[in-house]
Amino acid sequence: MVIKHFELLKKDGKSRLGILHTSHGDIETPCFMPVGTQGTVKAIFPSDLIKMGAKIILANTYHLYLRPGMDIIKQAGGLHKFINWSLPILTDSGGFQVFSMNDLRKISEQGVEFRSHIDGSKHFFTPEKVIEIQDVLGSDVIMVLDECVEYPVEHDYVKASAELTLRWAKRSKVKYNELNLNNNRLLFGIIQGSTYKDLRKFSAESTVEIGFDGYAIGGLSVGEPSERMYEMVSETEKFLPEYKPRYLMGVGTPEDLLLCIEQGIDMFDCVLPTRNARNGQALTSAGKVNLKNARYKNDFSPLDSECDCYTCKNFTKAYLSHLFRAEEFLGLQLNSLHNLNFMLKLTETIRNSISEGKFKETKKEFLKKYQGLQ
Amino acid sequence: MVIKHFELLKKDGKSRLGILHTSHGDIETPCFMPVGTQGTVKAIFPSDLIKMGAKIILANTYHLYLRPGMDIIKQAGGLHKFINWSLPILTDSGGFQVFSMNDLRKISEQGVEFRSHIDGSKHFFTPEKVIEIQDVLGSDVIMVLDECVEYPVEHDYVKASAELTLRWAKRSKVKYNELNLNNNRLLFGIIQGSTYKDLRKFSAESTVEIGFDGYAIGGLSVGEPSERMYEMVSETEKFLPEYKPRYLMGVGTPEDLLLCIEQGIDMFDCVLPTRNARNGQALTSAGKVNLKNARYKNDFSPLDSECDCYTCKNFTKAYLSHLFRAEEFLGLQLNSLHNLNFMLKLTETIRNSISEGKFKETKKEFLKKYQGLQ
Repeated sequence: MVIKHFELLKKDGKSRLGILHTSHGDIETPCFMPVGTQGTVKAIFPSDLIKMGAKIILANTYHLYLRPGMDIIKQAGGLHKFINWSLPILTDSGGFQVFSMNDLRKISEQGVEFRSHIDGSKHFFTPEKVIEIQDVLGSDVIMVLDECVEYPVEHDYVKASAELTLRWAKRSKVKYNELNLNNNRLLFGIIQGSTYKDLRKFSAESTVEIGFDGYAIGGLSVGEPSERMYEMVSETEKFLPEYKPRYLMGVGTPEDLLLCIEQGIDMFDCVLPTRNARNGQALTSAGKVNLKNARYKNDFSPLDSECDCYTCKNFTKAYLSHLFRAEEFLGLQLNSLHNLNFMLKLTETIRNSISEGKFKETKKEFLKKYQGLQ
Repeated sequence: MVIKHFELLKKDGKSRLGILHTSHGDIETPCFMPVGTQGTVKAIFPSDLIKMGAKIILANTYHLYLRPGMDIIKQAGGLHKFINWSLPILTDSGGFQVFSMNDLRKISEQGVEFRSHIDGSKHFFTPEKVIEIQDVLGSDVIMVLDECVEYPVEHDYVKASAELTLRWAKRSKVKYNELNLNNNRLLFGIIQGSTYKDLRKFSAESTVEIGFDGYAIGGLSVGEPSERMYEMVSETEKFLPEYKPRYLMGVGTPEDLLLCIEQGIDMFDCVLPTRNARNGQALTSAGKVNLKNARYKNDFSPLDSECDCYTCKNFTKAYLSHLFRAEEFLGLQLNSLHNLNFMLKLTETIRNSISEGKFKETKKEFLKKYQGLQ
């Protein structure tokens, strides 16, 4: 069976190989989406994203709405043109930012009032407005406004919040339908419910009932133990339709990708590969490397001898270590490039393994080597 | 007449077209040398330096001696290998840094004691030691240790200082000869004398008498008025031999390059194109552009429509302006790339104009357009 915007090509256990069709191109899944919050993946040239095989990037509604603002984006002819990125863009709704960056937010049935983290100005997001903003941005994958609760929160609060998120999701769908967008500009619902199984079930079933082009699992990777996260992915995934893409928001590490792809997740995004890169942490096939560690000062081998990126083909750990000690930009540029390349190549390897029916072997082999150093 | 390491190909007025031969390759002059103080040109990939036509970069003896230290550089097999740069490297002697970064330095006939700006540790540089360090670095152009005086300073002090620098230069030459380096690893003397004509004459004549592979004019662009600098270049240049390269240290702006090439200077280095780039100032054929200026927020034209760099071919001033406002790394990366490309292309244009005997027209045309905006 083929749904027009998503093809499920093959399954290997619960892990899935697919293709997501959007108005700016196709994305093979499972995929890792580099995060470009403010319209740039930090310290990376767009041409390098293309070279390393990124087919889609994330941007953030909250941030772009505040700066440069919708007027500028409109004049530019949309976000793709503004940032000169011709491949797909998924925009997060800004729900997470409104709730995580604002102590003064006021939530109501209508929407959420918040203050700009830039100048303190007051703003009001409704589910409808957030869809409209993403329409102007020209997003290929539009996310509904949701309330993303902290961890841990009591069951009662999470229940009320998941119900509100659901009512917002319905209004989002109505607004999206009104806008009558190009068919391949997709709308994804977001499932909440914190770490409560019954609420994950409720949120999943009722969000699916509304009907979206894909389903995101939100509210995880916010401080709960990893085991709890994996459990909640499992408790959510089982209520999701087979023929729609599933997106685990804000996740994660190489291990997270493997363990969650094993449970049927198709899409991921996370700032960690680039954020940690800027702090000197590199991801390698033999595990994590902290370039600020004294042992690398005179280690004249590449970060990862199996890696084909510009950093690994040209520079040694000793040089990278020097760049971090000397607080040189080139260090974080080279390490960000490497880490993103690592995540993108890992998902490519995973896709190939699913295609060959060898996901479990590949996972085992990768983790054995990756966790060996730790 | 051809001196083995420097060919003077053509003159147009006093402006000169030449080729400097070094152990890692040839450099067409006039040339602008990007500054890579700590073994990296800030925020620029070495592959991009190559693409934009950089044939030589600078590095700094003082900085590299302190960090990563000579032990690491030695283990790496020299600076070229450590930073993976296969073209020529000129290393400044560190004199300027010892004198500008150290309030506690103690100068004597023997050398200069200073404290590390990193950890406060005490070190002692002699003219001989600085040559030895540059030997280990593997520098293609080695600079002598000099005392770089502030501006303004009294005649008596400058006189004594220029005499000391001269005695150090003699010792440097002796040490250099002892090391018996590859013929195309060159040694440059440095002429001091602040803004005193008689001392510039003294320093130039006596430094030339020692005999070096090239002559640097030091102690300028340290706060004196531009007119004074141009005058001192003229007052120094006339005592320099025709068939050796002349290097004006720490200079400069596009105007400086044109005005000093007109006076017979061959080589330049300056941190301004990259330092100002990081602050949002772009160099364009129509003058300087401050990307933080409100007028560029919705200017959807490239920085410089005549420029062929990655930045200008792909991005608008509006996007660059957004990146600077949002304090994104990509802004300073793209602007650094553009500014360096601008300086390198300007020197290429100048070389072509000398070759065609049209230096004066090119200079006039460039300045008319460049200064139009200001």
